[in-house]
Amino acid sequence: MAQEHVVRPIGIVRSAVKTLDEAPKQGALAGTDAEIVVDPAYAAALVGLSGRVGPASEPAGSGGRRRGSGKIVVLCWMDRADRGRLKVHPRGQEDMPERGVFSTRSPHRPNPITLHTVELLEIRGNVLRVRGMDAIDGTPVLDIKPHSPELDG
Amino acid sequence: MAQEHVVRPIGIVRSAVKTLDEAPKQGALAGTDAEIVVDPAYAAALVGLSGRVGPASEPAGSGGRRRGSGKIVVLCWMDRADRGRLKVHPRGQEDMPERGVFSTRSPHRPNPITLHTVELLEIRGNVLRVRGMDAIDGTPVLDIKPHSPELDG
Repeated sequence: MAQEHVVRPIGIVRSAVKTLDEAPKQGALAGTDAEIVVDPAYAAALVGLSGRVGPASEPAGSGGRRRGSGKIVVLCWMDRADRGRLKVHPRGQEDMPERGVFSTRSPHRPNPITLHTVELLEIRGNVLRVRGMDAIDGTPVLDIKPHSPELDG
Repeated sequence: MAQEHVVRPIGIVRSAVKTLDEAPKQGALAGTDAEIVVDPAYAAALVGLSGRVGPASEPAGSGGRRRGSGKIVVLCWMDRADRGRLKVHPRGQEDMPERGVFSTRSPHRPNPITLHTVELLEIRGNVLRVRGMDAIDGTPVLDIKPHSPELDG
């Protein structure tokens, strides 16, 4: 139908959650803190992040440390996903009838990109400290966006 | 930092908005209706979508027509984006200072994936009619997810 495109991770998740067994299922409720380590090649793209706390005394991405606030949306690539699976049992519950993956938030989908709306706690150089991340340690990060209640709510 | 991955469009946007000049800037406010035409190869992945209207009499993806309700998140690939640009003027306003793309919703970013939270009006076979889509006609679609106020709000 249309041509393929290549995505290149711009960072990686660092978390105490190391395995899929430990990972919460779409756990926005989980209070786990994690880090997003952005490839230094993309540090300039962080400048201005956490704008909700007003003018920054030090720009992010310059090695300065700033407290952040507000939410960001992190797009991750689920490199262990089964891309060929078009139906899943919701939340992995085998007793639930299968549904199409586009009607679920399963990581198993043709393009296994997941959305994580997390609280940005702090930016330190190229490292973002976030709360509410439910991806395991080592997960590739594709993109970071400011969350917008108007656009995303 | 990490390996590349390939994304394959699962559908395409069909809209009366044909050019970038006509496209609203992150126009969740725009009331434009559009269609998402899903590649028939992925129709099974639509089954169960629009769950908020209760049990479906006919499953989506089977050729049946159902009214939908609720919101979905559509991930698109901005194939005209400048992937090398790490800073932009917010909302294209040249008089605003440049910011890192990760602090904006600009389509110009290393992995030009955009999020569109839209109202699902109807599912007809492999075609979703939606309201609030701000991507132009022909935009490749990578993924469709149910919107969750808990996860995304």
